[in-house]
Amino acid sequence: MSPFFSVMADPDFSVWERTALWAVLGIAVLGLCYAAFLTMEILRKDAGTESMRKISHAIRIGANAYLHRQFRAIALLILIVTALLYFTAAEQSIAIGRACAFLMGSIFSASVGFVGMNMATQGNVRVAAAARTSFAEALKIAYRTGTITGMLTDGLGLLGGTLIFMVYGEHAYEVLLGFGFGGTLLALFMRVGGGIYTKAADVGADLVGKLEKNIPEDDPRNAATIADNVGDNVGDCAGMAADIFESYEVTMVSAMILGWASFGHKGVIFPLLVRAIGVLSSIVGTYLVRTSEEARAAMKAIHVGYKVSAIVSIVGFCIVGFYYLRFPEVGLLDSWMGLGVEGLDMRPVWTTLVGIILAVCINYLTDYFTAPEKKPVQGVARATQTGHATTIIEGIAVGYESSVWSILVIAVAIFGSVLIYSGTNPTYIAYGVAMCGIGMLTLTGNNISMDVFGPVADNANGIGEMAHLDKRSRQTLADLDACGNTTKAITKGIAIGSAVIAAVSLFNAYITDIAKLTGKTYDTIASLLSIAEPLVFIGFLIGGAVPLLFSSMMLRAVGRAAFLIVQEVRAQFQDEQIWNGKKTPDYARVVSICTQEAQGELIGPGLLAVLGPVVVGLLLHKEALGGFLSGIILSGQLFAVFMSNAGGAWDNAKKFIEDGHYGGKGSQAHKASITGDTVGDPLKDTAGPALNPLIKVMNLVSILILPFVVRYERLNAWTILVIGISVFCLGWVIRRSRQESPEMVKWQEAIKAT
Amino acid sequence: MSPFFSVMADPDFSVWERTALWAVLGIAVLGLCYAAFLTMEILRKDAGTESMRKISHAIRIGANAYLHRQFRAIALLILIVTALLYFTAAEQSIAIGRACAFLMGSIFSASVGFVGMNMATQGNVRVAAAARTSFAEALKIAYRTGTITGMLTDGLGLLGGTLIFMVYGEHAYEVLLGFGFGGTLLALFMRVGGGIYTKAADVGADLVGKLEKNIPEDDPRNAATIADNVGDNVGDCAGMAADIFESYEVTMVSAMILGWASFGHKGVIFPLLVRAIGVLSSIVGTYLVRTSEEARAAMKAIHVGYKVSAIVSIVGFCIVGFYYLRFPEVGLLDSWMGLGVEGLDMRPVWTTLVGIILAVCINYLTDYFTAPEKKPVQGVARATQTGHATTIIEGIAVGYESSVWSILVIAVAIFGSVLIYSGTNPTYIAYGVAMCGIGMLTLTGNNISMDVFGPVADNANGIGEMAHLDKRSRQTLADLDACGNTTKAITKGIAIGSAVIAAVSLFNAYITDIAKLTGKTYDTIASLLSIAEPLVFIGFLIGGAVPLLFSSMMLRAVGRAAFLIVQEVRAQFQDEQIWNGKKTPDYARVVSICTQEAQGELIGPGLLAVLGPVVVGLLLHKEALGGFLSGIILSGQLFAVFMSNAGGAWDNAKKFIEDGHYGGKGSQAHKASITGDTVGDPLKDTAGPALNPLIKVMNLVSILILPFVVRYERLNAWTILVIGISVFCLGWVIRRSRQESPEMVKWQEAIKAT
Repeated sequence: MSPFFSVMADPDFSVWERTALWAVLGIAVLGLCYAAFLTMEILRKDAGTESMRKISHAIRIGANAYLHRQFRAIALLILIVTALLYFTAAEQSIAIGRACAFLMGSIFSASVGFVGMNMATQGNVRVAAAARTSFAEALKIAYRTGTITGMLTDGLGLLGGTLIFMVYGEHAYEVLLGFGFGGTLLALFMRVGGGIYTKAADVGADLVGKLEKNIPEDDPRNAATIADNVGDNVGDCAGMAADIFESYEVTMVSAMILGWASFGHKGVIFPLLVRAIGVLSSIVGTYLVRTSEEARAAMKAIHVGYKVSAIVSIVGFCIVGFYYLRFPEVGLLDSWMGLGVEGLDMRPVWTTLVGIILAVCINYLTDYFTAPEKKPVQGVARATQTGHATTIIEGIAVGYESSVWSILVIAVAIFGSVLIYSGTNPTYIAYGVAMCGIGMLTLTGNNISMDVFGPVADNANGIGEMAHLDKRSRQTLADLDACGNTTKAITKGIAIGSAVIAAVSLFNAYITDIAKLTGKTYDTIASLLSIAEPLVFIGFLIGGAVPLLFSSMMLRAVGRAAFLIVQEVRAQFQDEQIWNGKKTPDYARVVSICTQEAQGELIGPGLLAVLGPVVVGLLLHKEALGGFLSGIILSGQLFAVFMSNAGGAWDNAKKFIEDGHYGGKGSQAHKASITGDTVGDPLKDTAGPALNPLIKVMNLVSILILPFVVRYERLNAWTILVIGISVFCLGWVIRRSRQESPEMVKWQEAIKAT
Repeated sequence: MSPFFSVMADPDFSVWERTALWAVLGIAVLGLCYAAFLTMEILRKDAGTESMRKISHAIRIGANAYLHRQFRAIALLILIVTALLYFTAAEQSIAIGRACAFLMGSIFSASVGFVGMNMATQGNVRVAAAARTSFAEALKIAYRTGTITGMLTDGLGLLGGTLIFMVYGEHAYEVLLGFGFGGTLLALFMRVGGGIYTKAADVGADLVGKLEKNIPEDDPRNAATIADNVGDNVGDCAGMAADIFESYEVTMVSAMILGWASFGHKGVIFPLLVRAIGVLSSIVGTYLVRTSEEARAAMKAIHVGYKVSAIVSIVGFCIVGFYYLRFPEVGLLDSWMGLGVEGLDMRPVWTTLVGIILAVCINYLTDYFTAPEKKPVQGVARATQTGHATTIIEGIAVGYESSVWSILVIAVAIFGSVLIYSGTNPTYIAYGVAMCGIGMLTLTGNNISMDVFGPVADNANGIGEMAHLDKRSRQTLADLDACGNTTKAITKGIAIGSAVIAAVSLFNAYITDIAKLTGKTYDTIASLLSIAEPLVFIGFLIGGAVPLLFSSMMLRAVGRAAFLIVQEVRAQFQDEQIWNGKKTPDYARVVSICTQEAQGELIGPGLLAVLGPVVVGLLLHKEALGGFLSGIILSGQLFAVFMSNAGGAWDNAKKFIEDGHYGGKGSQAHKASITGDTVGDPLKDTAGPALNPLIKVMNLVSILILPFVVRYERLNAWTILVIGISVFCLGWVIRRSRQESPEMVKWQEAIKAT
């Protein structure tokens, strides 16, 4: 094969297709340029008073310190994995490509997080500054700050995928795996580290500030305030952006893999075209988000932008599909799938539309279960009156129920994609499901704008509070913050839903891959993965347990880190001068504790994600590994949605009470609602979202190690050694995750005696 | 076929086998006689002072009122289902048999619950009376009261299964399904009703008594005290006994079904023999539970009894296996499976031993995660110092982790059974797993003794407190109560573990049944149930959601009912005379509210359990229904263990603090621990345990409706009608489960305004 731009030299591709690929590449670059344009626009805005700049600067310093340290910590690991990946491929050109693609994927993912977070820390102070004069302007700045990250995600994801395909052509499949894995692994670290950081700071700040000392959130005397604001950026911006980037990338990778297997080049180019249309429509839609000074309708403006993007996309898909999806050899499709046009096959378009509908439904569901004016949150708010315990119970019930509907909607969407391809072969159906994932993430630009809008508005509100802005500006910022809470919750739903669809597509790619490696048909392999097969069932049980193990590790890590923060904040409050507001607390110390703790906790989940499939695959073989993956998908989805939505409901129930219901701030009901919110915090911002990358990392690792799993069907000295070392590492990791820090034990033992 | 005692006239059965069957029947009756003997022994004991009798009488009246009303409420339903079952079988004699067996199963299950509960209410006061003079005597009475229910479970389960087999011989399979279904359906109702009752009363009593008024548990001024004690009986005695009875029955039914399919009559008779040995060993072991007046070692005595039973069983199994499991046609097994003896196949014995080991491991795990002196509970206790929220988070982490280990142990046990049968065909392997379930429930007599011991001791303690016994007697009762908490928690682990194994066996029976109905081989059918098959995967996602929907229904039901109790208790405390202890509160009113609420909540879960498989089966067909069942098993197990053990850990963390740690009673830590306990109550005693029968009911319903599912592979007017009605009913049920009672809304709206 020709090593570079094989597609461009391949006579199988028409001129039209080659031009289209260049056009897609151009649109990807256009997206990046738009991001650069917005960046300049934001940076030109007024950055407020001296004191505001100082606070914002402190947040930026803290956030950057964290990310730098994180990147340093994982750089070595990334290099090791790059080297290991080189050995997973048989052919050398593929091996180099895969290793480079892995590096590219991880660097892209890291850049999305890094740039997005930096822009958020630049944007927040400008939003606060703008809020002094104009609601409309503040909204625009906050939203566009988010759009920068959104366009970066779109642009880099599309750029990487298209480039790899253009270079490697029919071999792109194996290289794309590396690209997907790089993004996913980085996202896992960003999610885990960011999630632990943000919640340790938040829980720590709240426990001492709100509950013990009865002072408001973001009170500048609280030493954890800056860390809390930094946390919003590293968790909700960097973590979330990397997470969605990765879903964006993985759905594209799996659609391209399955597309090649079923429809050849049209199957690969069509998803790229769809993505390119998505980029264009996101540019149009996000540009239109604005409101008037009188209306102050932030939520409405965002929804309008979303709808415009959706309509542009749908029209675009239909037009491109109509002209491109011609398969003369197929003839007339005997249903409405081809609109009765000879040789036209619109099924990929329909499945993409199913994906868009799925995204809309999940948005609606998340909104229903977490918005303060809807019944579920009202129920939680009511339950606060009978105390802490009933608040928790009601929130758990809401979380459980939301998980039911969410999984049902996903099941219906998969069913829809299957129906569209019914009567065809399994790889076509798998391609349909992958296209559904592509459709679901079409509006990634808008989704990330909405998501990043949340922490930017939250931070701006914090800066406003710390900088003692006037009442009207504070109201503007509070309104934007409330709106941001809703948009943040909504994108969380999309992130999880897309993770499940992406994982299902990867799972299908896994089966396709076994078929290829063993030289058997897809159907033969599929029939081996029967749940009636005891080994598959065992793998499936073990897989189901993984998300719980992972979640319990995350929760404990937050607990440990939060405890240290509580200690530190309490100690600083002992200083009379700090308590009386005459001395600035030592914010940097808290930031540094958070950073250190979050870093230390990365190793466990990372090893679990990578070694889990290795152990199951080598010990119980490929069928059990298939069961294992499906178990992870099911239980991961159930627990991720449960934790995210229960957390969202508690959060907004607290907000509802703070708006003056059931006695308002300071009442018993309010105290119970704070308990709910504090319980929900690590569930919704650490454990829940970290399950998304976990699901995908494990699927990708399984595909990557598959050649070895297939080769070593029987145990030998080497595999036993690998299994032994892996089990030992896992045991060490689990043991470590359950330990408590020595200071904590000492302190607690001292209290126990009293 | 000859309608009666076909086996006895069948020349295929040797004289030895016929005698053995009669002997098994005899042992079943012996178990019942032993229960009767113990009943007389208990009733002869001193029932204490007048005031103690009065309290005990009040509890008994309340408990009986509840059960009577429950039986009346479901009697009609049972009759309808009996009639419907008549139509599910093709042949008339089978149809009659199945309907009668269903009635027998439900009556047996109800009797176990009813008698067990009644004996518990007789035993509790006698334990309290004995505690005035002797620890040893009090322990003996409490434990033996439990043994009555244990022997009843053993005896009735074995009697029913053996009788049906003796009458129906090779057709026993289809009749046994009815027997299993009867027990399971009743258990579901007992679990759901009892669970809601007990926690509504408990949470209601605690919220007002402990948290608002700061008075101790079981304070006679609290109007919910009697209801709370009644609840212990209807939930922990009647509900739990019916639940284990049903697992006992279902594992036997599935072992007999799979045994017949793989080994003919030896495959059926062997599990019956194993069960009979279990009955004998339980009689021996439970009889030996005693302690000296000086040692006061209740837990040790119970463990000794358990170990004796285990040893007797293991020896018995080996002997019976060695002499009975001869298959001359097999020749010499080429491994240690036959101990090198020509024609001997000891594999069923080995799988039974795996089951016993599994039971021991699960006992250990549950103990580790819920016992106050172990690390996990200590961690929760420590977390109470940083408040309500950290207590909850730590408990959730403990629950998650315990679920991981529990599912791993089950996976290893299944793997062990598979290894023992490796190289054979799938029905043999399925039989191995079923025998593992048989082994696991060998010591059901001991397990139920331990379980019922819990509420009896708890009630005795309550009676002691209300009747103002002297300090030493109170200490005796408190010690027994603490011991009872541990034994109760341990049996919960066994109940869930056995439910999963039973469900896996039923799932295998489901596949065997499809093979039979479609005339294809087991392997062909198994290959259709691939997780790579989109419909199976969709069924699997939907199945995974069911336990969450069910749990959220349960939690909400408890919340609703508890709210009414809180209202009522608060209203009664308004009466100065009641508050000053000069007037007896109106206990009966609270009992009546609990009863009414618990009844009203039965319909939803019942319909969900029965209609769920109908909708999935008719709409998505048999493969998806298979996926659905496996999804339920996985997520049911994960959530059941999570909820039970998190609840147990919170409960014991509270006890640990009440023993004087971290400030002891009345401290802030104690308040946080009460919140944990109150959150854990409905999780561990309502939602969690109710998942056990749910998993099994849905598996059994699926097997029963399978002929229709197979017949109507394509939708027609009838199936659409049935699906439509079912979906409508389910929608109504879900809607209803989310509604709040009108008084509650009225009251809360009134408060919201203030």
